[in-house]
Amino acid sequence: MDAETYKNLSAISVATVTMQLLKRGIRNISMVGVRPLNDPVQRILGPAYTLRYVPLREDLSTPDVLGKPDYPPRLAIEQAPGGSVLVIDGRGRGDLAVVGDLLVERLKVRGVAGVVSDGGVRDCVEALAVGLPLYAAGPAAPASVAGHAAADIETAIQCGGVAIFPGDIIIGDADGVAVIPQALTAEVAQDGVEQERYERFAKLKIQEGRPIPGVYPPNEATKAEYAEWLKAGEPES
Amino acid sequence: MDAETYKNLSAISVATVTMQLLKRGIRNISMVGVRPLNDPVQRILGPAYTLRYVPLREDLSTPDVLGKPDYPPRLAIEQAPGGSVLVIDGRGRGDLAVVGDLLVERLKVRGVAGVVSDGGVRDCVEALAVGLPLYAAGPAAPASVAGHAAADIETAIQCGGVAIFPGDIIIGDADGVAVIPQALTAEVAQDGVEQERYERFAKLKIQEGRPIPGVYPPNEATKAEYAEWLKAGEPES
Amino acid sequence: MDAETYKNLSAISVATVTMQLLKRGIRNISMVGVRPLNDPVQRILGPAYTLRYVPLREDLSTPDVLGKPDYPPRLAIEQAPGGSVLVIDGRGRGDLAVVGDLLVERLKVRGVAGVVSDGGVRDCVEALAVGLPLYAAGPAAPASVAGHAAADIETAIQCGGVAIFPGDIIIGDADGVAVIPQALTAEVAQDGVEQERYERFAKLKIQEGRPIPGVYPPNEATKAEYAEWLKAGEPES
Amino acid sequence: MDAETYKNLSAISVATVTMQLLKRGIRNISMVGVRPLNDPVQRILGPAYTLRYVPLREDLSTPDVLGKPDYPPRLAIEQAPGGSVLVIDGRGRGDLAVVGDLLVERLKVRGVAGVVSDGGVRDCVEALAVGLPLYAAGPAAPASVAGHAAADIETAIQCGGVAIFPGDIIIGDADGVAVIPQALTAEVAQDGVEQERYERFAKLKIQEGRPIPGVYPPNEATKAEYAEWLKAGEPES
Amino acid sequence: MDAETYKNLSAISVATVTMQLLKRGIRNISMVGVRPLNDPVQRILGPAYTLRYVPLREDLSTPDVLGKPDYPPRLAIEQAPGGSVLVIDGRGRGDLAVVGDLLVERLKVRGVAGVVSDGGVRDCVEALAVGLPLYAAGPAAPASVAGHAAADIETAIQCGGVAIFPGDIIIGDADGVAVIPQALTAEVAQDGVEQERYERFAKLKIQEGRPIPGVYPPNEATKAEYAEWLKAGEPES
Amino acid sequence: MDAETYKNLSAISVATVTMQLLKRGIRNISMVGVRPLNDPVQRILGPAYTLRYVPLREDLSTPDVLGKPDYPPRLAIEQAPGGSVLVIDGRGRGDLAVVGDLLVERLKVRGVAGVVSDGGVRDCVEALAVGLPLYAAGPAAPASVAGHAAADIETAIQCGGVAIFPGDIIIGDADGVAVIPQALTAEVAQDGVEQERYERFAKLKIQEGRPIPGVYPPNEATKAEYAEWLKAGEPES
Repeated sequence: MDAETYKNLSAISVATVTMQLLKRGIRNISMVGVRPLNDPVQRILGPAYTLRYVPLREDLSTPDVLGKPDYPPRLAIEQAPGGSVLVIDGRGRGDLAVVGDLLVERLKVRGVAGVVSDGGVRDCVEALAVGLPLYAAGPAAPASVAGHAAADIETAIQCGGVAIFPGDIIIGDADGVAVIPQALTAEVAQDGVEQERYERFAKLKIQEGRPIPGVYPPNEATKAEYAEWLKAGEPES
Repeated sequence: MDAETYKNLSAISVATVTMQLLKRGIRNISMVGVRPLNDPVQRILGPAYTLRYVPLREDLSTPDVLGKPDYPPRLAIEQAPGGSVLVIDGRGRGDLAVVGDLLVERLKVRGVAGVVSDGGVRDCVEALAVGLPLYAAGPAAPASVAGHAAADIETAIQCGGVAIFPGDIIIGDADGVAVIPQALTAEVAQDGVEQERYERFAKLKIQEGRPIPGVYPPNEATKAEYAEWLKAGEPES
Repeated sequence: MDAETYKNLSAISVATVTMQLLKRGIRNISMVGVRPLNDPVQRILGPAYTLRYVPLREDLSTPDVLGKPDYPPRLAIEQAPGGSVLVIDGRGRGDLAVVGDLLVERLKVRGVAGVVSDGGVRDCVEALAVGLPLYAAGPAAPASVAGHAAADIETAIQCGGVAIFPGDIIIGDADGVAVIPQALTAEVAQDGVEQERYERFAKLKIQEGRPIPGVYPPNEATKAEYAEWLKAGEPES
Repeated sequence: MDAETYKNLSAISVATVTMQLLKRGIRNISMVGVRPLNDPVQRILGPAYTLRYVPLREDLSTPDVLGKPDYPPRLAIEQAPGGSVLVIDGRGRGDLAVVGDLLVERLKVRGVAGVVSDGGVRDCVEALAVGLPLYAAGPAAPASVAGHAAADIETAIQCGGVAIFPGDIIIGDADGVAVIPQALTAEVAQDGVEQERYERFAKLKIQEGRPIPGVYPPNEATKAEYAEWLKAGEPES
Repeated sequence: MDAETYKNLSAISVATVTMQLLKRGIRNISMVGVRPLNDPVQRILGPAYTLRYVPLREDLSTPDVLGKPDYPPRLAIEQAPGGSVLVIDGRGRGDLAVVGDLLVERLKVRGVAGVVSDGGVRDCVEALAVGLPLYAAGPAAPASVAGHAAADIETAIQCGGVAIFPGDIIIGDADGVAVIPQALTAEVAQDGVEQERYERFAKLKIQEGRPIPGVYPPNEATKAEYAEWLKAGEPES
Repeated sequence: MDAETYKNLSAISVATVTMQLLKRGIRNISMVGVRPLNDPVQRILGPAYTLRYVPLREDLSTPDVLGKPDYPPRLAIEQAPGGSVLVIDGRGRGDLAVVGDLLVERLKVRGVAGVVSDGGVRDCVEALAVGLPLYAAGPAAPASVAGHAAADIETAIQCGGVAIFPGDIIIGDADGVAVIPQALTAEVAQDGVEQERYERFAKLKIQEGRPIPGVYPPNEATKAEYAEWLKAGEPES
């Protein structure tokens, strides 16, 4: 992701991203059951680093495994690059935590951009106090080994019902989290900025009493009006 | 809905409405998965104006349809009468938005009483800033065309698992949203006011240490006591 | 529950309790769909007193039954001992209330420690104003008779997908609610206090930049370091 | 249940029973997820004897408990009276067996009328070979202790989403299983026989080409025609 | 649907239809929870005539409404044209019947091609004996009024999670039911016939031991081989 | 898996396997939503070879990908060893096929032991005609690319809610499918054979009228009786 694209994506909403992807025929990129936990909401943006769980098996899902040197969840915590978003396939189990305050503290120290999961967060109050953006299903007391077995890192995963491949761009705000296929990131970002510029204009018109039809989406007359408005220069928001 | 009924319903809770309907044998009128989004909660009250979606079909659910003059969701935004509640059958899909800030802005301008849906709201922070009562499943980034196809307006719909017919009375508060069959509205409202008057008395007694049995519901002795209390005149709350 | 155990459990988190139980092979003790409703969160702790519902049957689930002297939900309100937690099997139906403000008021007067249920709470704003800890699915307008039939009190129940036997210890905080089998309470409490002491040390190390492996869980070197830290005396938090 | 009622219920379908109960305002009596397993279907009819499970807890749900003298599921097998239907609350978990071939063999020896559950049946082929009517969710390999803890016998339970009280009448055929409140059994049975008599007449008319309206339900003209047909005497089916 | 298209669709499988639609970017057209009930399976094919339900409301969902002249479900039975498929939105409630044997008898008399619904069928054994193709969730005892309220006929509906508009082509076989958008029917049918011709060739090759890659889908060499095979003339199956 | 173990597992039921694993503290090994499709049922047994899907993404889930040389589902078909069981993580989507008749034909040619998946089978009648054991959710028309994106082969997967690691032993019969952790296979097989020997004895006793308690599980007296029976030599079944 180049600097221009990063800047553009930082300026637009997840709602806008999903519309730009829909215009390209891509619908299944908005996570279900994943919400911002920080208050106030902290945006999240970065390439995905992935971690995956499978269902528990009692011989494999014990507190002992947490100390093994090749335990994938620990590798993920230590290896997710600075600036990346750690995306954890929590199998839609919001009742099982995938991170707690100690791990979040470590991710913060390491410069990771944040965590996204359809699982839960334990010691959630303390984890949020760390100050890292956390998007998840909500608080949950049990550790991951109570209900998951660890699978692997940096493979294709699901999270919130959508596919994430390592390196896909993750973006989150108050409306939720979307994933942008790598190849489309730059154009989605650029067109998204333009979409939002028009929507600021459209909102002014609607506040003035204009009906939705003709304005959103615009007909030819409104497009001309918008062109005039753009020439006049958009006022600072 | 006459002015007296409107005033009565404005004074009572949704919990009371559901009890009055239960006393009339009607149970299936409280929406599931629909909650007040405004903070603080804004009550909602008015006759239903309905909009309905069916599942997406890729040839029918594209950004292009949004500009068509007869697109039912746009008709709904422009035609829902002032004072009505726009009730949208979002097929229980809280992950798909049924309105966003631009449409909510327009509804506000047009004097609609608010929106109720088992779907989501996009650009939710901005939509809430408009100041209109919004009851829905929560925030959601994707637009309706990402997962719905539009069906029609002003037909019988489901919302939150209950049936709504155009003109049914919609009432919502912090506990959620209920629908009142038109024919029962006046009597439910009137009896609800009386029910709550008694409950204020009962609460005083309970706070004084009286057991629930005999008080809630009242036995003959408590009924007599209540009659005395009423004669004395209820103190201003 | 002796005073020492009560004190220990009061000092530790639900997350810690679930880990101590997992170490004893017990996983299925964390409720799903039950969250703290009070703001700020009020902890809950005490032995379970249980109440159970079954699905509604129209001939048995009417407002009339509320006044019957042997109606189990009313017995529960009057008989749950001071200090106990009233745990209500709401059949996972967050859309049906199991208590409202009048009942909560009575429980407060009677000295009950609080309510835990996978059902809802009606007149929820008023119920929370009473000041008793309430852990439930959320607000819900309809009374229990709208969708439940009463079964019995003080039998084994489910709540939030876990089994609760009368007298089991219930503990809740911001992460949710867990149940501790009676026989294990003292040791879980004691070991939990020690677990959290170590985690305070581990957090300091992580904040200093130490990797998770070797620290959480500790290797031999870190254990020695921790022993030193303990000798020096843990600073007041 | 007197002999006349038993005979009447033996002659009518579950579909008819549900319609008779609906006419009395009772809807929530038809089990979901419970189907006849025998091929060909064997009808089931008798008063309910109930057994109840709650979710597993690892300290209580072990193979050891099966040998305890007061283990409720074993008591149920030995105590359900001849002619009764053993109804087992399997918590809607069709993936966990509530009986296997050995227990079914014992129930057969003891003269129990059959088993109804929303749980599964293990060693299902062998269990069906015993020849007792079994209505359940389907085959399932794991024993009940793999996922349930035993609660009690002869209390109110749920099964397939409906309430069953000990002694309620259970009836099952190819369409599924319904429960009849004890007090209504005789009249439901009697009116059901009459309903089906009319439906045989109606079917003849429809086969002759008559439209549904006017025939089902009948208008005055059809009622008269039916009275004639009755006088002529219904032919043996 | 012209005769050629009808013939083509009669010759191909639902699996083939879904692949042809996928090639045109249309995925959401295969019903979930709808299966053939007749044994042996009877294919179904024809334009959709639609009927829709909403959730029950106790004041509207009574046995009385069945006799009303404008009751939509009765209108549907009498008005669905010969050759059409009656598609009933049963709201995914397989536990509530949408037809029974009397109505199926009438549909048979009227020449309707069959019934498709995500609801259930009551008196299912007798209904199947009528000999009309029935695709539904399975048997279910309660009548529709036990849990539905009638909405309308010939509007857009959902069935099995997909959208159906009146006149869309419905096709069903042992694999399930799909809906073909009207505008695409002819080309889907024609290309489907060609697809299956190739698949017969591919199957022969695979039976001879050829690996899947290169054959399914074909590479250039296999395409040439297929062209030869076609010239030789496909043997009668 | 040595020959002795293979023979032992061939002789015992899946129900027995789950009980042996439960005795070793392992519960989560029985698949949900996976059933034998062949009629009559064909047993399945062999080491797992795994294939995994993630949710569809429209840019990755197109008919084109089927022809790519490194497409994981095609690699799986060509590389699963003779005697292995191809286990496919179909994400619990019984409405999406993971194999059809052409692929099953190829697996048969290659000597694979069969297919297990929580997904569906397309062209199901033809696929079953191939004669390979198929355990899946049921028939389903759409191909995998209609709703899945391919992930990888030979990694840890979930299927039917349980974890499967490559090389785990898969066993299926009429009751369903279980997975046996590799390390436990020999002892589970051996003890299972002994368990079933006792159960044959127990069944005889129960058929003679003995109560379940004391026989199943056996008390000391019954154990002695069983020892005698064993000495006498078990009659041929």
